[in-house]
Amino acid sequence: MSEVRQKAELAGRATNVLNSLTTEQKNKALLDCAQALIDHSEAIIEANKEDLQRGRENGTSVSLLDRLALTEERIASIAEGLRQIVELPDPIGETLETIERPNGLHIVKKRVPLGVIGMIYEARPNVTVDAIGLCLKTGNAVVLRGGSSALSSNRKIVEIIHGSLATSAVPRDAVQLIEDPNRSSVDEMLKLNGLLDVVIPRGGSSLIQNVVQNATVPVIETGAGICHTFLDATANPSMAAEITLNAKVQRPSVCNAMETLLIHKNFAQSHFANIADKLRESNVELRGCEETRCLIDWAQPALEEDYATEYNDYILNIKIVDNLDEALQHINRFGTKHSECIVTEDGANAERFLQEVDAAAVYHNASTRFTDGFEFGFGAEIGISTQKLHARGPMGLPALTSSKYIIQGSGQIRS
Amino acid sequence: MSEVRQKAELAGRATNVLNSLTTEQKNKALLDCAQALIDHSEAIIEANKEDLQRGRENGTSVSLLDRLALTEERIASIAEGLRQIVELPDPIGETLETIERPNGLHIVKKRVPLGVIGMIYEARPNVTVDAIGLCLKTGNAVVLRGGSSALSSNRKIVEIIHGSLATSAVPRDAVQLIEDPNRSSVDEMLKLNGLLDVVIPRGGSSLIQNVVQNATVPVIETGAGICHTFLDATANPSMAAEITLNAKVQRPSVCNAMETLLIHKNFAQSHFANIADKLRESNVELRGCEETRCLIDWAQPALEEDYATEYNDYILNIKIVDNLDEALQHINRFGTKHSECIVTEDGANAERFLQEVDAAAVYHNASTRFTDGFEFGFGAEIGISTQKLHARGPMGLPALTSSKYIIQGSGQIRS
Repeated sequence: MSEVRQKAELAGRATNVLNSLTTEQKNKALLDCAQALIDHSEAIIEANKEDLQRGRENGTSVSLLDRLALTEERIASIAEGLRQIVELPDPIGETLETIERPNGLHIVKKRVPLGVIGMIYEARPNVTVDAIGLCLKTGNAVVLRGGSSALSSNRKIVEIIHGSLATSAVPRDAVQLIEDPNRSSVDEMLKLNGLLDVVIPRGGSSLIQNVVQNATVPVIETGAGICHTFLDATANPSMAAEITLNAKVQRPSVCNAMETLLIHKNFAQSHFANIADKLRESNVELRGCEETRCLIDWAQPALEEDYATEYNDYILNIKIVDNLDEALQHINRFGTKHSECIVTEDGANAERFLQEVDAAAVYHNASTRFTDGFEFGFGAEIGISTQKLHARGPMGLPALTSSKYIIQGSGQIRS
Repeated sequence: MSEVRQKAELAGRATNVLNSLTTEQKNKALLDCAQALIDHSEAIIEANKEDLQRGRENGTSVSLLDRLALTEERIASIAEGLRQIVELPDPIGETLETIERPNGLHIVKKRVPLGVIGMIYEARPNVTVDAIGLCLKTGNAVVLRGGSSALSSNRKIVEIIHGSLATSAVPRDAVQLIEDPNRSSVDEMLKLNGLLDVVIPRGGSSLIQNVVQNATVPVIETGAGICHTFLDATANPSMAAEITLNAKVQRPSVCNAMETLLIHKNFAQSHFANIADKLRESNVELRGCEETRCLIDWAQPALEEDYATEYNDYILNIKIVDNLDEALQHINRFGTKHSECIVTEDGANAERFLQEVDAAAVYHNASTRFTDGFEFGFGAEIGISTQKLHARGPMGLPALTSSKYIIQGSGQIRS
């Protein structure tokens, strides 16, 4: 039997015990794991050095090496993440609905774990611990397939967590790490219907597209964000400037950062030059439509494909539009249904935008950068779903749960 | 452009209008459609005759021809189904959550339509109307791909509904029928990411497996049911007999009917012969384990594969078990996580069974035949989900919805 199938089966066998654990048992195990990670920081850093060494030999970029690197501080922060998950309310067992039928059947819909969750992700070893914490808190087993560039670190982390779980109520088989670094182990996970209840990809768009295109197991897509901000004719100029700057440069590399700025022609005439100056001071390259380039001579021309690109970088498309309708059409055409914002003092336009834009999060007068589980107050984030099924937008613990109908009768039969 | 892509795009363009319709507008359109179907019964019956004729020429079985056939009465009942959907509460626009953040952001999670739903189903033309009603009520557009054997009927039904929608607030493009009878049109639908938000298969297991195995679009699986009933040592004998008979023979062809009866050895000794007699009177063939065949000489031997078979027929597997644990193990191994029942007077055993069995619906002292949207009081049923993502068990209108975060700010930016 392959490693993937064998480990998925072991995870599956752990679900029965996981399902019946109390919140206290789960929390105790997570706190122990957090402490164990700190106690074994040195061993983790040693293992991490192997990954870094291999990375350097393979010519990995400095920024990727930085994301891969673990220090005592980073390990403390990862452990702190586990402790924060302990503080969150346990969604399992919650009564979602109670139905009393005329025939006397008593139906209760309860929140239950999903079962076995497959996580497919890239280099960063903090995702390993994060995923373990979120899955165990919600009574799920997890099969982890991290990037091969972090394999030594992940192996050590999971070894430490297994050691800690051995003295807890949580079965150690609840956490499985796939060590086969070949792409075929990912492909196999994607087809494990009946063994994996869901696969969640986290990483760049090629990783996510591979999962979406090839999985027969249900997927929660945490996809790309081509986010827009529309500065309406009546936008407050200083608010418009602040939101624009924040949405673009506060952290350009993330999915909720803005990629295209749409500006009402009237607002653009009076206020865009000022905003463009600030963007230039922040080293943002502008790519604009013809009207943009009449106003801002240093802007590059925007090609059709630019509007369809998630830069995750200091580049911003600009399009000047005649009215709200043109802005809505542009978003409808190029948006990825992630996060979209209108800055306006016109209540009716705001209302139309919020109603008509089809996206996980729609904003009036606030930066798209707030689309985030922590910023929404969930206390955790599994990812940001860009699909409409099961969960949409930032996902907290309930996104890792399912439900079950429990029916109590007294001999009822169907006539 | 192919028919499938073209029609899916037309459906997508209708979603904006659909999304902003009032409940009254949607209800009015559905009532008009119901009346139009009745007014044009004769034309539908004429078109249906073509399907029946073609079916007879192709050697379609009498029972399939019966399911395909439309009469004035059946059309009246299909129209009545639409009127019942009108009576149901509209889930769209419901506030699911309100979050006030310390920074002043006001976040509301609202229920919204899924968007465009693909329905892939088999012969019965009533599913066409049913799907249209459920999708339009929830503000969704629908792309229908019914079985080619009902194509003439479906074409006529959709033509009548298009005619009726033309004078309503609902855009007629919200309803699209794929007329290409080739399997390739199904295959194309399954890959329409970005155009279809979900595909729901309804039909036999080969249709469903084709969808699950090949779709890159998210799927709601409405799958097979290998349902068990466990008669515990303390089961009330007459209740046990009634539930057993009901779960098997009240309608053997459906997914919530029982396929395997598990019996505690003590109960079997005293009471099984009596139940077996009743099953025989109902023409049920028994396939049992060795212990079963010691008690019931006319039972056939059950093979391993029998326990893994959804008969949908007058055949029942019997297995005599030593205790609850053995019953749980058997269900865990062969069940399809659909509907499972324990008949017992022992509260602790009932509790364990309800907690430990991983299925969409778990019953104590009631027939598995109740797993049904109407029996649960939902007033409608899209199908019975056997997956854990998005919806589990009988699906009412909310299963055809998603959500959207609407965020009102006053210039908030992320620091």
